[in-house]
Amino acid sequence: MDDLKIAIAGVGTVGNGVLILLRKNRKKIEKKIGRKIKITAIASRKSRDFKGLKKTKIFSDANSFLNFSDYDLLLELIGGSDGVAKEIIIDALKKKKHVITANKALLSKHGNYILKLADSQNVLVGYEASVAGGIPIITVINNFLVSNTIKKISGILNGTSNYILSKMLETKKDFKTILNDAKAYGYAEADPSFDINGMDTAHKLSIMSSISFNNKIDFDKVFVSGIENIQYTDLKYADELGFKIKLLGITKIVKSKVMQFVYPALVNKESLLGKVDNVFNGIMIETDSSKKFFFQGEGAGALPTATSVLSDLERISLTNYSKKNYKNTGILAIKDYFKIDERYGSYYFRIKTFDVAGVIADISKILKKYNISIKSLYQKENAEKNYNEVDIVITTHNCEEKNVCKATNQINKLNSTKERVVIYRVEIT
Amino acid sequence: MDDLKIAIAGVGTVGNGVLILLRKNRKKIEKKIGRKIKITAIASRKSRDFKGLKKTKIFSDANSFLNFSDYDLLLELIGGSDGVAKEIIIDALKKKKHVITANKALLSKHGNYILKLADSQNVLVGYEASVAGGIPIITVINNFLVSNTIKKISGILNGTSNYILSKMLETKKDFKTILNDAKAYGYAEADPSFDINGMDTAHKLSIMSSISFNNKIDFDKVFVSGIENIQYTDLKYADELGFKIKLLGITKIVKSKVMQFVYPALVNKESLLGKVDNVFNGIMIETDSSKKFFFQGEGAGALPTATSVLSDLERISLTNYSKKNYKNTGILAIKDYFKIDERYGSYYFRIKTFDVAGVIADISKILKKYNISIKSLYQKENAEKNYNEVDIVITTHNCEEKNVCKATNQINKLNSTKERVVIYRVEIT
Repeated sequence: MDDLKIAIAGVGTVGNGVLILLRKNRKKIEKKIGRKIKITAIASRKSRDFKGLKKTKIFSDANSFLNFSDYDLLLELIGGSDGVAKEIIIDALKKKKHVITANKALLSKHGNYILKLADSQNVLVGYEASVAGGIPIITVINNFLVSNTIKKISGILNGTSNYILSKMLETKKDFKTILNDAKAYGYAEADPSFDINGMDTAHKLSIMSSISFNNKIDFDKVFVSGIENIQYTDLKYADELGFKIKLLGITKIVKSKVMQFVYPALVNKESLLGKVDNVFNGIMIETDSSKKFFFQGEGAGALPTATSVLSDLERISLTNYSKKNYKNTGILAIKDYFKIDERYGSYYFRIKTFDVAGVIADISKILKKYNISIKSLYQKENAEKNYNEVDIVITTHNCEEKNVCKATNQINKLNSTKERVVIYRVEIT
Repeated sequence: MDDLKIAIAGVGTVGNGVLILLRKNRKKIEKKIGRKIKITAIASRKSRDFKGLKKTKIFSDANSFLNFSDYDLLLELIGGSDGVAKEIIIDALKKKKHVITANKALLSKHGNYILKLADSQNVLVGYEASVAGGIPIITVINNFLVSNTIKKISGILNGTSNYILSKMLETKKDFKTILNDAKAYGYAEADPSFDINGMDTAHKLSIMSSISFNNKIDFDKVFVSGIENIQYTDLKYADELGFKIKLLGITKIVKSKVMQFVYPALVNKESLLGKVDNVFNGIMIETDSSKKFFFQGEGAGALPTATSVLSDLERISLTNYSKKNYKNTGILAIKDYFKIDERYGSYYFRIKTFDVAGVIADISKILKKYNISIKSLYQKENAEKNYNEVDIVITTHNCEEKNVCKATNQINKLNSTKERVVIYRVEIT
């Protein structure tokens, strides 16, 4: 059989990982796909010594791929939601080449167009590496669970933010200190905005949601809240109550609407997701036919992500795409989206108040007015040992988010309330 | 494209699950594989009402498949390591039909022959359902990890035995009582021998080991020890020490030899495998390129297992097998096997002794003689409150299994020793 000619655009962390794995385990892959792999071109901004790749064209600019066609499969490992990554992917598809990409930002923005274009060109797009690096979650949803209807997916999908939350609790340090540590240790990028503001999780969730529910990728419809304002105090109180705070991505169908929520939430610390710490990712899936599936692995890093890239290479190489029986896209039905203020669930409140008589009476009166039933309430000496202040920590039974907002507004207005109420959602995972 | 014609042999738990999932989610599967699925024949010993399958031939005897060829893909869901299951699989392969089987007993015994025959006939054999029912472990090893070299797999692979161990600890009841409960609740079959004596785990381990290490399936080389003699006392002591006892299957390469061990072992109760309770299965994989991957799901049951069966159907239907580029078999190198008496690791001892002076001195002298270094030792009032007896519970640092056997023999001969020493291995997972 003909060699499989691959072109690699981008030799950053993931691209380098792919080259390392191809050096280490190339024969195993070639045996599995029944053909030799030939790297016909690499685009790398930095000049590097590509050992043993004497017949490979080395481009310093990925745009050179626009004038290059000697490949079957493009590996786009540059990143970025637009620009050259997008251009060379579209160019490759128009040339009827298969594409593998790890680019969640691009897919969450242009995925519908890209997958549709691939279908019309009768080629395949692999994007296992775009969600939860080393966890085969796309294959599980797309292929393994082909006979199931997916009910709900909850995931810890961003290693940087999970590292920060784990270390804050462990070391009792504040957000900024741990973020700086994470940068120093290489667990956070120079600009970690998308990791901590939830956008990276939202990119990944929008992709998973679309293949789970056969919908369009609709990133704009993801409700996103990040971890940038999380305080150690709340991690500690949550811990005392038996919870951890995790940045979750949750997608499910509620009342025929698609839920796509990203927020930090309290989860039982003994649950599987509650035990996913540090840079690990974890994903829980529920279907109509199976109880909870759980997957844990490294969500990022050169080799785990490259493992996902090369698993796509294997699948694409072995897929019988030429008979037009494989579609990249689902039915793309436009569905309604479940809005955050429709949420019905449990909540955690922390109310910093002056330690005066009648505070709890005032607060509980407001909660009662909005039909919010208290599950636990405890008053804590203020964390900063400021003796005329106390923290009142409340968890609720299930109630309506709309009412929680109204109640919070009123509690914020109480004379006794010293700071805006801190609220987190509580999730059963 | 032509319809995919499937023949289903056996309508027990799994076969019925396949029919249920095909009724529920057939369109989704058909859309994914780009062709219609037609069930041309079903063999079922019991006469049933197969709703909506008017054009399907119904055989009361699976042997009828030997004279039937109107199918592309045989689903062998009868079970049994020999007999009709084996006959119809071989017949199907000789007719150049693809085969899907959930039959671990058969594969562990005849898998090498069956996979080689399939390769020579240029057809595919799917066996995702044979190991850990609803966990996509075969796909992960065979396909997702194609670019990695697997280092070690440790798994809880038998739901019945895991249920028994979990419930014994939870309810403080003895093995027989819980086994009877398990039968009553449908978590154990009428004859649960293979579940509790470790053979079922060994069947599954031999299959995983062969695809992980590109070796023959060599079931006879699996060291197997079951849970039939486990006592509540040891589960309790292990718990007090921070461990759970789990029936593990472990395969890895040690000194160029293949390890295939099945035994109940102490694992840290806070570890991922330590948290897999009741009927769930859990599998941990380590590779040259990725830290720990962990998968948890239902290991058995109609729908999870049928999910695996139908994921094979999807893969086989979409695989470009006709170009002879896909092989069912690995290199089948004959390798040495790592023997149980070569094990070097940690151990748990429980020694029931008469409560007389000098016992600990005698025991520790023997351990010292065999270079066994004590990590923890504690003396417990005997569980049956027999005041002239005590339990001495010891955990060791890493030492040689050979020496553990010799030391145990000598401890058994001490006058103070009341019963044969109970020993479990301790595993870091």
